[in-house]
Amino acid sequence: MALPASVRIVEVGPRDGLQNEKVDIGTAAKIELIDRLSRTGLRTIEATAFVSPKWVPQMADAEQVLAGITRVPGVSYPVLVPNEQGYLRARAAGATEVAVFTAASEAFNRKNTNASIAESLERFAPVLERARADGVKVRGYVSTVLGCPYQGEVPLAEVVRVARALHAMGCYEISLGDTIGVGTPGKARAMLRAVAAEVPIEALAVHFHDTYGQALANVLACLEEGVSVVDSAVSGAGGCPYAKGASGNVASEDVVYMLHGLGIATGIDLPLLAETGRWLAGLLGRETGSKVGRALQGAAAS
Amino acid sequence: MALPASVRIVEVGPRDGLQNEKVDIGTAAKIELIDRLSRTGLRTIEATAFVSPKWVPQMADAEQVLAGITRVPGVSYPVLVPNEQGYLRARAAGATEVAVFTAASEAFNRKNTNASIAESLERFAPVLERARADGVKVRGYVSTVLGCPYQGEVPLAEVVRVARALHAMGCYEISLGDTIGVGTPGKARAMLRAVAAEVPIEALAVHFHDTYGQALANVLACLEEGVSVVDSAVSGAGGCPYAKGASGNVASEDVVYMLHGLGIATGIDLPLLAETGRWLAGLLGRETGSKVGRALQGAAAS
Repeated sequence: MALPASVRIVEVGPRDGLQNEKVDIGTAAKIELIDRLSRTGLRTIEATAFVSPKWVPQMADAEQVLAGITRVPGVSYPVLVPNEQGYLRARAAGATEVAVFTAASEAFNRKNTNASIAESLERFAPVLERARADGVKVRGYVSTVLGCPYQGEVPLAEVVRVARALHAMGCYEISLGDTIGVGTPGKARAMLRAVAAEVPIEALAVHFHDTYGQALANVLACLEEGVSVVDSAVSGAGGCPYAKGASGNVASEDVVYMLHGLGIATGIDLPLLAETGRWLAGLLGRETGSKVGRALQGAAAS
Repeated sequence: MALPASVRIVEVGPRDGLQNEKVDIGTAAKIELIDRLSRTGLRTIEATAFVSPKWVPQMADAEQVLAGITRVPGVSYPVLVPNEQGYLRARAAGATEVAVFTAASEAFNRKNTNASIAESLERFAPVLERARADGVKVRGYVSTVLGCPYQGEVPLAEVVRVARALHAMGCYEISLGDTIGVGTPGKARAMLRAVAAEVPIEALAVHFHDTYGQALANVLACLEEGVSVVDSAVSGAGGCPYAKGASGNVASEDVVYMLHGLGIATGIDLPLLAETGRWLAGLLGRETGSKVGRALQGAAAS
């Protein structure tokens, strides 16, 4: 159970985080958030989503956000695309990396995208084809890997099947998401192990929500299994539409603190990241969702 | 790295938690808190402290609390005692289990108790002697095992030395406390392993504060090392005097959720515990510090 020497954090605050916050911080602040994050040493920042503004009004300014940010060499800015149309919109706006998303739960995928998992995968085929021709990297998300708000249990075999399909289609990385944050470390470990038996561990990322406070323990278990890419959101941005008032994504600051403590390199300036998290929390009108963010501020004030 | 089949939670909310909260909930509410906790399946509930009311005014009602609670058969109610005088007070008030406390950091012990570690251990000798004669169990606390707010690093050898001394004096259980919550899982694991080389793991407990959000991951690492007793506080009660606004003890609800998810028995009714945590948070005038507490409430409301 050797831990990885380094971990790449995929910062999902500007997209997964803000999409699930009640307060809309506005386009200019989104751009500033991404630019601030770009200076922390993060190498991957999910910037926005090219989805229907009818369904996700929070991301209606995707073009403006992508046009407004200052791209830092070496930093990748993936954007979510649901289908070929979204891909074309994203490319026209200058996206050089995209992400597609589906679920391991049939019930969830239907509610979330009005399509079966098989239909979602079909929609991704032209995206992957175009991306290959364009030299664009595609990330794949599998949500509800440890539980579903509609169907409850999600069979491990389904998680493996969907992850394998995305990898076979050409996704360079598959992010395995515990969308409702119900997982515990033993289940997270077993899930990752099952997927890693079919998809190389180097092509896998983990994505935990902290709904039940388990995210960091789950990350630890997955690091022990060899994963070296972790999704997280600065300030723990986001929430859980299935549990009012519950926590959102695991806070990037808390993940980075643990990684550094474990002697795992991230290349990230933690105090600067924590400052960015507190700045974002101010815009959202609440306290930072990162305990590290709070403790560093409190220690400075004491 | 087999996990234990069962874990005993030592609930420290009524003492360690309330002692570090700004709001004093009053004697009657303290009694109700302990009585509510007694009905959740918890087997050990730290009830109060027989310390000088001059130093710890929050615990000035120790006699009344111990007199007021309804003792449930099979549940132990340890109380903190700093010395022989405190022990005699506790016994006169009906205590049948006590706890002594010192630190692994010389600087911390001096600031906290105005004595060197050696002097603290000397003060415990008559307590242990009397307790043996009285058939009273004594728990021992070692604080600052992963860092000190005054001296920074704490040598592992000191943690081992103090834990061994308490065990040799007759403490049946030594609780290893990361008082300022700075530890990460690798350090927690190494610390526990070093102590367990000298003191039987069955006589060790871990005690994490969630100041930097690391507590649950640290608990997981220690479970993997074989520890089977975990200190925690309902609703994550408490705070950190060294970092304003920071989190307190790890929330019992979140620990129990993880343990049950790992297939580890605790004997605790989690929904009832979470309800107690929300009730306490209401008295403290804030949201519960347990993410499980919040998520269960939110899921019910959604």
